[in-house]
Amino acid sequence: MRAGVKVYAPASVANVACGFDVLGFALEAPGDDIIVRPGKSSGLKIVKITGDQGKLPKQIEKNTAGVAAQRLMEHLGAQDESIEMEIHKKMPFGSGLGSSAASAAGAVVAVNEILGRPLTRRELLPFAVLGEQVADGAYHADNVAPSLLGGLILIRDNQELDFYRIPVPIGLKVLLVYPHIEILTKAARDIISPVVTLENMVKQSGNLAGLITGFFTSNFELIQNSLNDHIIEPQRAKLIPHFSKMKDLLLESGALGCSISGAGPSIFALYNNSSNINHAGLSVQKMLRENNVGSDVYISNINMAGTIKY
Amino acid sequence: MRAGVKVYAPASVANVACGFDVLGFALEAPGDDIIVRPGKSSGLKIVKITGDQGKLPKQIEKNTAGVAAQRLMEHLGAQDESIEMEIHKKMPFGSGLGSSAASAAGAVVAVNEILGRPLTRRELLPFAVLGEQVADGAYHADNVAPSLLGGLILIRDNQELDFYRIPVPIGLKVLLVYPHIEILTKAARDIISPVVTLENMVKQSGNLAGLITGFFTSNFELIQNSLNDHIIEPQRAKLIPHFSKMKDLLLESGALGCSISGAGPSIFALYNNSSNINHAGLSVQKMLRENNVGSDVYISNINMAGTIKY
Repeated sequence: MRAGVKVYAPASVANVACGFDVLGFALEAPGDDIIVRPGKSSGLKIVKITGDQGKLPKQIEKNTAGVAAQRLMEHLGAQDESIEMEIHKKMPFGSGLGSSAASAAGAVVAVNEILGRPLTRRELLPFAVLGEQVADGAYHADNVAPSLLGGLILIRDNQELDFYRIPVPIGLKVLLVYPHIEILTKAARDIISPVVTLENMVKQSGNLAGLITGFFTSNFELIQNSLNDHIIEPQRAKLIPHFSKMKDLLLESGALGCSISGAGPSIFALYNNSSNINHAGLSVQKMLRENNVGSDVYISNINMAGTIKY
Repeated sequence: MRAGVKVYAPASVANVACGFDVLGFALEAPGDDIIVRPGKSSGLKIVKITGDQGKLPKQIEKNTAGVAAQRLMEHLGAQDESIEMEIHKKMPFGSGLGSSAASAAGAVVAVNEILGRPLTRRELLPFAVLGEQVADGAYHADNVAPSLLGGLILIRDNQELDFYRIPVPIGLKVLLVYPHIEILTKAARDIISPVVTLENMVKQSGNLAGLITGFFTSNFELIQNSLNDHIIEPQRAKLIPHFSKMKDLLLESGALGCSISGAGPSIFALYNNSSNINHAGLSVQKMLRENNVGSDVYISNINMAGTIKY
C-alpha cells in the first residue's frame, strides 16, 4: 500500500436544463477533499469528517464516501487492507451541487491511488455511483460521472452506466449561485409529476438534441436557444424563493441560459465569455441580500479534470 | 420566366426511433417528379397528376404541392405568373415515407427554379411546410426538411423552423420496407397517448442525445444502442401487422436498429455496411408474402442531396 493520498473532488451541475437525469458537468469549485492513509487496524475506517456541522455519519455503510470506498475495496479483494479516511466537506449539502457525489468520487479515487491505482478512472465509476446511491436513493450518475471524470457527460443509460463525453466549446463559462435556502431533496423529487405531456416531451427533445449539437459544433446561438427546460424547472422553481428574479437578472446580464442545478436551490447560468459574469453574480447576490437571503457565487470554466490528486 | 423545369423530390423517414417529431432523413428512392412550365393563363394551374390513382385534387388550395407553390409565388409577388404544374407521384400515400412532404418540397424547388431561383434552398422550407400542412394538418418539418435539403436533419423547433444538419457517418445504409397495408394517418395519430411517463422520457432523452452523439462521432455501437423508441413505437406497432416479426428479422440480419418510418406502416433499419442488407430485405418480403402481404423494399444511402433538378 502506498503512503497517504489527498484528492480534490469537484461539485457538479446535473440536468443542465433540458437534460434531466442524463446530462451533468463539473465545476472548478467548490469541492471536497478526501484524505486516505494506512490505518492501524484491518479494514476501512472514517476517522475524521469536517465541514459537515456534525451531520454525516462515520459508519461506513451509512456514509456516501464510505460505501463507495468499501465496494471498491471488496471488488479488489482489498477489504482487509487497513485504510483511514478523512472527509473534508467544502460545500453545502442539499445545495444541488452534487455534494454526496463529490465525496463518493473523491473516495474511490483516493482509495484506488493508495492501493496502487489498479483501476482506470472510468472503471471507478460504478463504485462511486453505489456510494452516491446511499445519499440519493437512486442509482444514477449525472453528478458522479462529471465529478469523477470532469467535463460535460452524457449518461445515455443510468442502469448500464453507458456514458459519453460531450465536447465543450472554448470560452464557455459557468456562473453558479447557491442561495442559502434549504430544500429537502425528497420535496424536490416529490413535486415532479410522474407524467409529462407528449407536447412538452417533443419540445424537450428538440432542445436536448439542439444542445448536444450546439456543443459539438461550438454554436453558441444554438446552445442559447436550446437551454430551456419546459418540464422540470417550472415544477421545481416553486420550491426556490426568488427563482424568477434570479433567472431574469442572469438572462439580462447576457447569460446564454439559466436553470436549476440538480434539484436546487442552486442555479447555474452559462456564458460565452466572462465580460459581464462577475457583475451578474454581484447583482444576484445584492437582490438576494435585499430579501434577507445569503448566497455564494462560483464562477468557473467547465472543469475538464474531474477528481484530482493534490 | 425560365423554360420548363423537372425536379425529383425524395421520400424521407421521420422520427428515426427516439427522435419523435424532431428528426428525419432523406432516402435516395422512392421520390416524386414535379414538372413546371410556362402556362397559358395567369396564375398557377395543376394540369396533370399521375400515380395517385385519382386520389389527389387538382385544386391548388387542396393540393400539397399546389399550396406550397402558391404560397411561394405570393411571397415573391409572382402570383400572376402563368405556371403549369405536373405532379408524378412515384410513391404511395399513407406509407410513412413522407409522400406529401416530397410533393411540397418538389413544388417549391421547381417553382423557385422557373422564376429564376430568387430564394435559397433553406429559404424555401417555410413554403414547403405550409404545403405539407394541407395533407398533414400539423405544421412540422421532419419530413419536408430532409426531403428538401437532404441528409439527417434535426428540427429543434417546428414552430420556429429552427433546424440543423447532423453529420452522417460514412458507411451508413438504410433499408426500408413498405408493407402494403393501409393505415389511416388519423388512426396512427389518435393511438398515441398525449402523456408520457417521466421514466420513459428520461430513457428517450438518453437515447436521443446518444444518437446525436453517435452521428457526430461516427460511433456505430452508440448509434446501435441509442436506436430505441420506448414511447411511440410500442403504441403504433399495434397498427402494423407483422411488425415484430419484421423487426426481429432485420435485427437478426445485423441492423443497428429498426423502427417505424413516420406514422408507418413502413419500417426502416440502419446498417453499418451493406453486407447482409439485400438478404435482409428479401427475408422480410418472403415472410410478408407468406402472410399474404405484398411489399416494396428500398435500400440506399442517406440521400445528402435532397430535392434536385433533373
